[in-house]
Amino acid sequence: MNWINEANVLIVGLGLMGGSYAMGLRKLGFRVTAIDTNESSIIYAKENGIIDEGSTKASPDMINAADAVIFALYPTTFKKWIVENQKHFKSGIFITDVTGVKKDVVYEIQSVLRDDVEFIASHPMAGRETSGVEHSDNKMFIGANYIITPTDKNTAEGIKWCGELGRLLGVGNISVLSPEEHDEMIGFVSQLTHVIAVSLMTCSDNVHLKDYTGDSFRDLTRIANINDKMWSELFLMNKDILMKEIDVFVNEMNSIKQMLEDNDREGLREKMRLSTQRRSLFNKKG
Amino acid sequence: MNWINEANVLIVGLGLMGGSYAMGLRKLGFRVTAIDTNESSIIYAKENGIIDEGSTKASPDMINAADAVIFALYPTTFKKWIVENQKHFKSGIFITDVTGVKKDVVYEIQSVLRDDVEFIASHPMAGRETSGVEHSDNKMFIGANYIITPTDKNTAEGIKWCGELGRLLGVGNISVLSPEEHDEMIGFVSQLTHVIAVSLMTCSDNVHLKDYTGDSFRDLTRIANINDKMWSELFLMNKDILMKEIDVFVNEMNSIKQMLEDNDREGLREKMRLSTQRRSLFNKKG
Repeated sequence: MNWINEANVLIVGLGLMGGSYAMGLRKLGFRVTAIDTNESSIIYAKENGIIDEGSTKASPDMINAADAVIFALYPTTFKKWIVENQKHFKSGIFITDVTGVKKDVVYEIQSVLRDDVEFIASHPMAGRETSGVEHSDNKMFIGANYIITPTDKNTAEGIKWCGELGRLLGVGNISVLSPEEHDEMIGFVSQLTHVIAVSLMTCSDNVHLKDYTGDSFRDLTRIANINDKMWSELFLMNKDILMKEIDVFVNEMNSIKQMLEDNDREGLREKMRLSTQRRSLFNKKG
Repeated sequence: MNWINEANVLIVGLGLMGGSYAMGLRKLGFRVTAIDTNESSIIYAKENGIIDEGSTKASPDMINAADAVIFALYPTTFKKWIVENQKHFKSGIFITDVTGVKKDVVYEIQSVLRDDVEFIASHPMAGRETSGVEHSDNKMFIGANYIITPTDKNTAEGIKWCGELGRLLGVGNISVLSPEEHDEMIGFVSQLTHVIAVSLMTCSDNVHLKDYTGDSFRDLTRIANINDKMWSELFLMNKDILMKEIDVFVNEMNSIKQMLEDNDREGLREKMRLSTQRRSLFNKKG
């Protein structure tokens, strides 16, 4: 399939991410359908022009009409859905997902998937501190990093198709990583940062400090507002890597603590200079 | 002294903070002078209308003309300056500071200060990830938290004067804490957050990850761009509290790691729900 405007795109899982894909694609002229077990999500999305049609059931007709399918489900329900419903897929279509971990998802889906359907996994690194279709916003993809994680089951055509989807939504940098590289990277830049934010909020009863916080504390804990169902799944699916990253980070905190204990001013300054120098490379590109 | 517009205000230490005080007060009609050993800072500030007059020396005339003095020096040089130059102060004036730690500063300054001059310590919780007078911006105080840390050497009149200074600059919430309470609070909301941000940047060579970062990593490391001279001083002056906070935080990280190890999904979700609930209390007031 090519991304031509006559295409029917099916979104499976109509939360914040699924809704944002739907909104972006429908604005571009695609016909967008959605399946979600939550009836109020379907009703909201139809009433607000986010989708053309929706169903709370895995409607064979709706599935069969789709020229492309985007899965925005919780990772644990994704495989079950494929096994039960893939018989309705039109032959030759490409499907993709938005899942935040890849190694435990991609190989399993590809191993059960019909031979005449191709799953190219991708991960748009965008989000909000809210969930639910009513917070959908296709602008969240503008300039975002977008990762494609192909395996040797994928074709050049499928990978190209998946990249074009990102480009249609306005993403910035498109990268291709192996599922393993993706999970290693995401363990550090996303999962570890969420563990840190949560720990800062839960390590002591700090609510009485709310009148004294500066922007730094607010920035570090913005993502402490977290969807517990989704993130506990993502953490556990990537637990070996995440536990290793926690160790590396905790060791560094402890080495700074040791410098404090030793009154090692020069050691502290050296860490701060390295930190400042590296951070300058992470400034957002315009 | 009252904050009447004819007053002469002397700023000692003309960096980012000193310059921002100067800018804000001069815009309100005060005559603002400044002392800083760095000649280019004085020249820049005069040329850009941040101050009326400046000196690279502790000019007796300039000090004696001041109806109020604001110290924006590195904490370690503050006491030395007072001992050497307080003989020039006009009798009866109030002086204040901007220092980010209080216990080790306030009592020492008050113990050496002339009896006819009152030092009321304060801490505007505002800043930028840049330093130097050329980044001065009086708007940084708008809505900021402002803490006054009086001791039993302070008068009600002095405390009122210090609060009015904050109000003139547009701060939001004005709080009164003891120096000890201030340092306990700041060890958590500001210093621990800076240790975390620095550790995230220095714990591994992560520069190759810059193409994959989402906003969460950028938010958590914004303050990893850090003035090493100032922050190493602030950390070491508050090291007992900061080391304790690092321990509390590291223990929490490790308890989350244990939950991962144990596949304790419900434990993780419980932490995330607590985190989300507490974080909602920290949203910035309008």
